Amino acid sequence: MNTISRLMRPQTVAVIGASADTAKTAGRPVAYLLKHGFSGVVYPVNPKATEICGLPCYPDIASLPTVPDVGIVLLGAERAHQAVRELAQIGCAAAIVLASGYTEVGEEGAKRQAELIAAAGSMRILGPNTIGLVNITDQIVLSASGALEMDHFPSGAISLVSQSGGILGSLLARASARGIGLAKMISTSNEVDLELADFIDWLVDDEVTKVIALYVETVRDTNKFRAAALRARQAGKPIVAFKIGRSEAGAKAAISHTGALAGSDRMYDALFKQTGILRAQRFDELLDMPAALATGRSLHGNRVAILTSTGGAGTLVSDALGVTGFETPPPDAETAAKLRALQQGDHAALDRNPIDVTLAGLQPELLKGAISAVLSSPTYDALVVIVGASALAMPELMSNAIKSCMSLSDKPILAYISPHAPNIGSLLTQGGVPAFSAPESCSAALVAMLHARQTMASELVEPIVTAAQRSTINALPSGSLDEEQAKRLFSSFGIAGVRETIVTTPGQAQIALSALGERAVLKILSSEILHKSEIGGVAVNVTAATISHRLLQMTQDVTDKAGITPQRFLVQEMVSGGIEIILGMHRDVLGVAILLGMGGVTAELLQDTTLRLLPSTGGLSSETAREMALSLKTWPLLDGYRGRPKADVDALVKAIVDFSTMVATLGDRLLEAEINPLFVLEQGQGVKAADGIVVLGEA
Amino acid sequence: MNTISRLMRPQTVAVIGASADTAKTAGRPVAYLLKHGFSGVVYPVNPKATEICGLPCYPDIASLPTVPDVGIVLLGAERAHQAVRELAQIGCAAAIVLASGYTEVGEEGAKRQAELIAAAGSMRILGPNTIGLVNITDQIVLSASGALEMDHFPSGAISLVSQSGGILGSLLARASARGIGLAKMISTSNEVDLELADFIDWLVDDEVTKVIALYVETVRDTNKFRAAALRARQAGKPIVAFKIGRSEAGAKAAISHTGALAGSDRMYDALFKQTGILRAQRFDELLDMPAALATGRSLHGNRVAILTSTGGAGTLVSDALGVTGFETPPPDAETAAKLRALQQGDHAALDRNPIDVTLAGLQPELLKGAISAVLSSPTYDALVVIVGASALAMPELMSNAIKSCMSLSDKPILAYISPHAPNIGSLLTQGGVPAFSAPESCSAALVAMLHARQTMASELVEPIVTAAQRSTINALPSGSLDEEQAKRLFSSFGIAGVRETIVTTPGQAQIALSALGERAVLKILSSEILHKSEIGGVAVNVTAATISHRLLQMTQDVTDKAGITPQRFLVQEMVSGGIEIILGMHRDVLGVAILLGMGGVTAELLQDTTLRLLPSTGGLSSETAREMALSLKTWPLLDGYRGRPKADVDALVKAIVDFSTMVATLGDRLLEAEINPLFVLEQGQGVKAADGIVVLGEA
Repeated sequence: MNTISRLMRPQTVAVIGASADTAKTAGRPVAYLLKHGFSGVVYPVNPKATEICGLPCYPDIASLPTVPDVGIVLLGAERAHQAVRELAQIGCAAAIVLASGYTEVGEEGAKRQAELIAAAGSMRILGPNTIGLVNITDQIVLSASGALEMDHFPSGAISLVSQSGGILGSLLARASARGIGLAKMISTSNEVDLELADFIDWLVDDEVTKVIALYVETVRDTNKFRAAALRARQAGKPIVAFKIGRSEAGAKAAISHTGALAGSDRMYDALFKQTGILRAQRFDELLDMPAALATGRSLHGNRVAILTSTGGAGTLVSDALGVTGFETPPPDAETAAKLRALQQGDHAALDRNPIDVTLAGLQPELLKGAISAVLSSPTYDALVVIVGASALAMPELMSNAIKSCMSLSDKPILAYISPHAPNIGSLLTQGGVPAFSAPESCSAALVAMLHARQTMASELVEPIVTAAQRSTINALPSGSLDEEQAKRLFSSFGIAGVRETIVTTPGQAQIALSALGERAVLKILSSEILHKSEIGGVAVNVTAATISHRLLQMTQDVTDKAGITPQRFLVQEMVSGGIEIILGMHRDVLGVAILLGMGGVTAELLQDTTLRLLPSTGGLSSETAREMALSLKTWPLLDGYRGRPKADVDALVKAIVDFSTMVATLGDRLLEAEINPLFVLEQGQGVKAADGIVVLGEA
Repeated sequence: MNTISRLMRPQTVAVIGASADTAKTAGRPVAYLLKHGFSGVVYPVNPKATEICGLPCYPDIASLPTVPDVGIVLLGAERAHQAVRELAQIGCAAAIVLASGYTEVGEEGAKRQAELIAAAGSMRILGPNTIGLVNITDQIVLSASGALEMDHFPSGAISLVSQSGGILGSLLARASARGIGLAKMISTSNEVDLELADFIDWLVDDEVTKVIALYVETVRDTNKFRAAALRARQAGKPIVAFKIGRSEAGAKAAISHTGALAGSDRMYDALFKQTGILRAQRFDELLDMPAALATGRSLHGNRVAILTSTGGAGTLVSDALGVTGFETPPPDAETAAKLRALQQGDHAALDRNPIDVTLAGLQPELLKGAISAVLSSPTYDALVVIVGASALAMPELMSNAIKSCMSLSDKPILAYISPHAPNIGSLLTQGGVPAFSAPESCSAALVAMLHARQTMASELVEPIVTAAQRSTINALPSGSLDEEQAKRLFSSFGIAGVRETIVTTPGQAQIALSALGERAVLKILSSEILHKSEIGGVAVNVTAATISHRLLQMTQDVTDKAGITPQRFLVQEMVSGGIEIILGMHRDVLGVAILLGMGGVTAELLQDTTLRLLPSTGGLSSETAREMALSLKTWPLLDGYRGRPKADVDALVKAIVDFSTMVATLGDRLLEAEINPLFVLEQGQGVKAADGIVVLGEA
């Protein structure tokens, strides 16, 4: 049995600092364990007591008769590390350290935290500052917190891992009130050792867990997190994450600089997207989405039937579904006939959707008939049943009718509760029909089910670094490359640049121009000046007649404005047509990401960019690169918008992959890299890097 | 007393078709009236009974001893109109018609509805297909629906008007569970007579009503609605509206055509925006926002203090606030000192926000001290108190502490309930502190309070139609104008066009070009061909050397592609620089709107457009026009983005006003009008209409 299994399903639990007074915090862990019938052994440890809750109490850890799997350390921060050291010494698998007063309170606390880590050695630590964990499946409460305790846990298939104990308590209370069943709940908090990724990894192998819900404040080890999330995806266990820290990103997004476009929250978005994690946009969705996913039912399309006994609420849900891209088509002829056959009276509204079951609402057999007609109809991929005020008097009628039909099909069945009727909602949810009191929650739940089914591009492509590339890289100086060097580097990874010649005199410029055609671009070439055009260092549309004069003028202008007299110039091919793209990188605590953005002033202003994190093993796959291009809001510009020629998207995809391979190959040495603009020419014509920046650290 | 007042506060109510059996629907109205102690007179009418609930029952309407203010008609659709006619004949103020089976069931029903309207004459009708109304302030229930009845109504300052009875019931149940107090509730449903606007208008004068919440499916009379909403705004009574039908708009938005850009839901957005109505984006917000607004407290800025006894939830709320633009700055030195003085222990977290009141959480005096310190701090505009799990044991502690501080300041105080604790939430809300269980609801409530304070541009500007304009208009043919005629029309309303000359031969074209400069645009001129450039009918950059040839070539190309040989051409000034704008109109059941959009392929692709409805009295004001320009996402392009010259926004504003005056002046005769592109030149240089479409109906 691995260490985390010993923590999650211990046979023996030592409670260090246990109190006999169950009204005190220190009295709770033993009481909680006993109350829920823990089948293993509990060792209270306290030098001042001989018996706690009828169990023999031990004066210290050294006196314990056997080695505990878990030690719950109730001591304060100033003493906890001693207990941790002793537990480690006797071979305990993991300590749960509840004390606060570590890194969250500054320098002094950080020192204590370091001491704690040293004391643990190879023993695992959950916390500190954690409120512990609950294995609801096996009714094992390893906590001293009232927020993680209740008389009756809602047992089910959703496991929660939270970096905040308070939020975990809130989620438990809310899930319980809604009838949403949980499997395991873990508060990881300070994460000096065990972190989100460790528990995701363990839960992948937990048979009871079908869905993992995460409350995320930060991801400490991106690669470990990614690997665990990908394992969950392969195992078919959806992960839903709610991540705070979005508003920081909001502020950053206001700064219109390429680096700043990629606010840190967008890096999380990229990480979640690339690992198939469903992001809850609202806190409620952190339960709504798992509640739907835990049913294990499959959504194969976007057509939803709504059965309702109250018109207004049916329309309300239909509208909310429509906003998120679902359709609510009317019943097909066969289904409509089935529905009509069920009903007496002259209600003619059965060929519409929402389907009015006013009469059926009060008669279980008719309701069953309507549900089964919809479930067997090829017109629908899912069913939302509206529970109206009329159901309040007979709460079981609806749930029994649905329950008896559930085996007829694998299609998702959701309920929307229109009045305030939490009991009916809970009853339905417990019966396998997730119930929601917000129409928008129905949408979010169905969106999650649809996304959970979508496959994702493979991410694991090793970059191939050739000997030639390697020697190019070794030969590179540190610091800023000039434009020509930068493009030569891009070119060595396969990204073509515009044709150009380095010149130093008007005469050379004349010759270079004549080789390019009638017109050219003239630029200063310098690794010291980054913003060439702002100081008059760029001229477009120069001709044989003007180039000499422009070069001399440019020399003068740049000298005046920048205080540096340019010695070298580029005479560059003018690209006509083509679509301007920005290709860059963004480095962040989470890792390194590739940024793709539409160029041109409007798209830059509207920040039409997308990010993907590099896997630790190499560059991006072409599937991911293509998906990046497709996810630009202005993608149609590349795809022949309004009769324009289609752009060479294959070449763009290759350029993204090549660029990402370069970034992966250069690793930490690469401080900045951007191609701006990259011209994407017409189909078959390739791409051309027209300008670029590279900043390198020491080799 | 006006008619609607007699309906809302009747002295005498007749119940037509009343039953003595209170288990039956027809038995309810009399029972409901009596149960809540209706102080007026109730007349049950039923030929088969002599007494109902102890009241004398009358065989028919003619036998009633006095004229009732209201008649509740419980008869079916086939008989209801007879009762309505009789009630009208004796001078009853209003009939509430509950029967369904009217327009909602097709042609037969529509006939019945017409019969009903005829029967009512000048008497007002609520319904049909309504579930009635409740005057909660005066405890008067005029309904037969269980959904509008409860033992104890939550009395307060919010009035609800809903076009769906079921939704009204749902809102009542939810408001009641949350402790949100209501004043009046009205289900308007089919609205054969009384509609949303009538009740908004009446509620403006209802002293008890402070906030009006609307559930809108459609607005039947835009001008009446607008007038009522503007009266409410002038009276300082915010209106919050939830409007369904958004998803239709979603579908329409996908079609990239100017007309289709302005989906009908966007027209509602414009209507709401222009009348100061706050739009609830989620169904929950239809109670969340009014709950906050009903406190009458004022939000003067965006800086929020969060007091919390549970760290995680404080961060969660802070993040949600940040996403919607609120700030949570740390306490100023003075406030921090006050907070520190309150607390024992070594908690050093008091100079942060969320402000940790862990210790204070359990001691009322300390909690009061913290709340009053924050309320008196100039650093904060509002306070959100987080209620954690620790409050569960002492639900009144928090509410009493807040209550005792409320008079210290006018700043909004909200509560976020982290655990599942509806009772505490209800207690707080009833005590004047709106409580929310979703962090996003806190944001939505504060956003509503901020927006409610914002003033709006005046809308009522009469267009001035000069005699010259009038004669131009009368002289206009019907059908499509050609480009030159269209621009002449725009020009007659003050919008300058590009310089241009109509030519028919290469020779004339040569002369026209020489008057314009070196380069010009050559176009065919035809009212039959709308999409000139697609058939080769536009050439830019033509010079003296090329214009003759281009004209002949164009004649050939257009003849080949369109089957029409162009006879006339425009030689047009080429505009260099300037920003391309689209200025158009959109006609819809709601009215006529002016559309402003950024031109250029990227902005058009991203549909950067905005709409404003024309008031019935004329064109848009310059304030509204300026606000339209400011609300474009690409507004910075007009405002000197990245060192570019600023555009002539004053001239753009004038062009919008002029265009709107034209649209208002031409009225129903104008079927289509668009200027595309309108070049906005550099500051001081004005605007130039470069192309345009006008389609006119018969004079």
